[in-house]
Amino acid sequence: MINPDLRYNMPVESPNRCCVVVPGLLVPVRPRVQVLEDMAVVIEGEKITEVIPRSEARRRHADADFVDLPGHVLLPGFINMHTHSAMTLLRGYADDLDLQTWLNRYIWPVEKKFIGPEFINDGTDLAIAEMLRGGTTCFNDFYFFPEITAKTAIRAGMRASIGLPILDFPTVWAGNADEYLEKGLEVSACWEDEPLISIALAPHSPYSVDDRTLTRVADYSRSLDIPVHMHVLESSWEVGESQRSHGKPTLGRLADLGLLNRRLLAVHMTQLDDVDLVTLSDAGVNVIHCPESNLKLGNGFCPVSRLLDHNINVSLGTDGAASNNDLDLLAECRIATLLAKGVASDPRVLNAFQALEMLTINAAKALGRASELGSIEAGKLADMCALRLDALCTTPMYDVVSQLIYSAASRQVSHVWVSGRLLLEDGEFLHMDIAHITDRARRWASRISSGTRPTGVQVL
Amino acid sequence: MINPDLRYNMPVESPNRCCVVVPGLLVPVRPRVQVLEDMAVVIEGEKITEVIPRSEARRRHADADFVDLPGHVLLPGFINMHTHSAMTLLRGYADDLDLQTWLNRYIWPVEKKFIGPEFINDGTDLAIAEMLRGGTTCFNDFYFFPEITAKTAIRAGMRASIGLPILDFPTVWAGNADEYLEKGLEVSACWEDEPLISIALAPHSPYSVDDRTLTRVADYSRSLDIPVHMHVLESSWEVGESQRSHGKPTLGRLADLGLLNRRLLAVHMTQLDDVDLVTLSDAGVNVIHCPESNLKLGNGFCPVSRLLDHNINVSLGTDGAASNNDLDLLAECRIATLLAKGVASDPRVLNAFQALEMLTINAAKALGRASELGSIEAGKLADMCALRLDALCTTPMYDVVSQLIYSAASRQVSHVWVSGRLLLEDGEFLHMDIAHITDRARRWASRISSGTRPTGVQVL
Repeated sequence: MINPDLRYNMPVESPNRCCVVVPGLLVPVRPRVQVLEDMAVVIEGEKITEVIPRSEARRRHADADFVDLPGHVLLPGFINMHTHSAMTLLRGYADDLDLQTWLNRYIWPVEKKFIGPEFINDGTDLAIAEMLRGGTTCFNDFYFFPEITAKTAIRAGMRASIGLPILDFPTVWAGNADEYLEKGLEVSACWEDEPLISIALAPHSPYSVDDRTLTRVADYSRSLDIPVHMHVLESSWEVGESQRSHGKPTLGRLADLGLLNRRLLAVHMTQLDDVDLVTLSDAGVNVIHCPESNLKLGNGFCPVSRLLDHNINVSLGTDGAASNNDLDLLAECRIATLLAKGVASDPRVLNAFQALEMLTINAAKALGRASELGSIEAGKLADMCALRLDALCTTPMYDVVSQLIYSAASRQVSHVWVSGRLLLEDGEFLHMDIAHITDRARRWASRISSGTRPTGVQVL
Repeated sequence: MINPDLRYNMPVESPNRCCVVVPGLLVPVRPRVQVLEDMAVVIEGEKITEVIPRSEARRRHADADFVDLPGHVLLPGFINMHTHSAMTLLRGYADDLDLQTWLNRYIWPVEKKFIGPEFINDGTDLAIAEMLRGGTTCFNDFYFFPEITAKTAIRAGMRASIGLPILDFPTVWAGNADEYLEKGLEVSACWEDEPLISIALAPHSPYSVDDRTLTRVADYSRSLDIPVHMHVLESSWEVGESQRSHGKPTLGRLADLGLLNRRLLAVHMTQLDDVDLVTLSDAGVNVIHCPESNLKLGNGFCPVSRLLDHNINVSLGTDGAASNNDLDLLAECRIATLLAKGVASDPRVLNAFQALEMLTINAAKALGRASELGSIEAGKLADMCALRLDALCTTPMYDVVSQLIYSAASRQVSHVWVSGRLLLEDGEFLHMDIAHITDRARRWASRISSGTRPTGVQVL
């Protein structure tokens, strides 16, 4: 199924070699609000085993491989909580259009004509490269052919939460809701022993999946204890649609179907009233905020500061590159922080450290993996990134966390580790063939441009 | 007055040497909505003399210096319409605070203690370097010691519109409004023969300058035909303040004082009603939009799409790095575009090309210099930038203007020319000593950190 020239180029490495990373500054995220100097992070195999003073590390681990990073800050890897990875191949294909034109004349016709395993593989490869380059070490994906997304992530050494897509209508991937669900659960069974891959159920949205199927989703989510990744209340249209089709509001319906709980990853959430905030808080629902996508599609504003006031767990997603148009999570975080202040008319809300938590530990919590991911602490998986701090835009420096959130560019990311394995070193990919990946992306664009650019009205 | 170790390191170059730039793609901005292939831009001295097919350029200018840039897009240089350049030295010094705390406890005490010619020189150098690195070729500045800002810009080869600051209260620069005005006009007389420098009058805001002085400003602006650069209606507080202090709304007062005309560069403008839009349109006022600063300070939303509906000329500014926290105009433009769609609840407003116009030709118009700046056309000054298009985040490419506005990072800027002089080549500065500039910035930060970090309440 996979094109034979797709290269599995991850070398076999000694799995338990001890490595000590010695950054200029360490922002572990947990313990909270700390910037540490003169510290070292010890990695053995896939885990962080110690966070100790440098001098102690040099004494106790003299034989280890040392990675000295003066002038850098070391952070937990960022977690992108909402992607349609393979859509990088449609980046910039159609912009500045109303939603219906965008979907009917551009996105759906292209998806119908081109999506298949090879498209998914090539688009996901490009997405993973872009994400790694910007410090992202894990992505929570939602697209067709999830088994290809998983395979591509494993090959790249990237961590992923793979959504099993579920819709009421047929697509290239499945014919009806039952088939989506069964096919998804079937392919996901292969990843049980894959440490880089976890799964989520991904019913598209409350308006595109019926009660019967959502009840099955809720049952599976409970019995398997896995997240439900769903677009919820993305636009104002959904508010009326739920009343029209189901005689109740969206959140009331999801509650009745058993979906409003700590396993729900509710993406977008731009249409919330005061009562909704209490409901979400009580239920422990996780909100995934995608500010660039919400703005670009004119869908409204997620009330982030009010969510935080209600102790609702908020993390960040870029959404797909067809509606963003990049996978730069640090830039997304900056917009999220600025927008939260703007929407609240208060410069004090969502401070720089809270923003950094949204990029890291909050996302780990949402995935139900706060004990393994989201901070640099002994016992956690070694998913980390380092950024150079010597760029013009981060000079001078008074507060490293402010500088990261309000000034740093993702291009300053120099090193990235996933599960203890160094994937990016001094900005260079160690295990991905970038020329090959970008070349394939360009070939897709050229096929897509010549094959589908609408010349007249093409309603699917 | 200037520290003797400040180096004037711009080499003397042959001024009229012919240079031909041959980019992969050319987006000249004017003529409108065109992406040109196989074109060459001929520069002689400080001007663009021809935009012609490559083959013709190679035939007719065989002896010229050719700069071949395959895989790049060539654009007019970006114009940053609102800066307080030297405040780069305070980047990240104080964030996430309410306005009064930020000003009273952080910004004003530091300004009082540290601002002087050397601070302005060093901060402006850092700002210019950051701006050039991101494709900005001209900045419209507003700060103390404008003669130092001008000198620093000239030394760097950067184009600047220098605001002459005017306030009713004493600062390090002058004691009262008359002194500000006279001192400003006096120092600016030195730049009459400086092609890189133009001037503007910069009364701080309607609430900090009285009627008598604003009338003088209006008179000078008219007689000298120079812009008035002013913060106007930045926050909701100003709406009530104008009624309380003057018994009329801000725009009514400015109209009465003779300031509401095509020379006014009204910065921020977050508090506008329907009548205001008509007033501004009829008067030909230019709006300078600073979305990141407005968001970060929680000051409200400038209604950009409605301004455009009223044919009001809108361009972009980053504001100072103390409230942004960078001078990345391309990123500012992305936020402006996304935010305009979000605020209008319409993904079609402020499309990618309109956004590019805000970065270039609209700014040139606002400065009264649309015949010289803002597009790549024969007869205009050769202020241009080139970006590499081979980054992951701009791959693949369907539409170069969409890609620029929604995906490209300012780090992709490779070449920058100001007045025909190449200042940045393949991302490297040709005439600025960056290590020296960043070293000086770090020394300032260390002095400022140790000297002023508030330990208790310090109200100025």
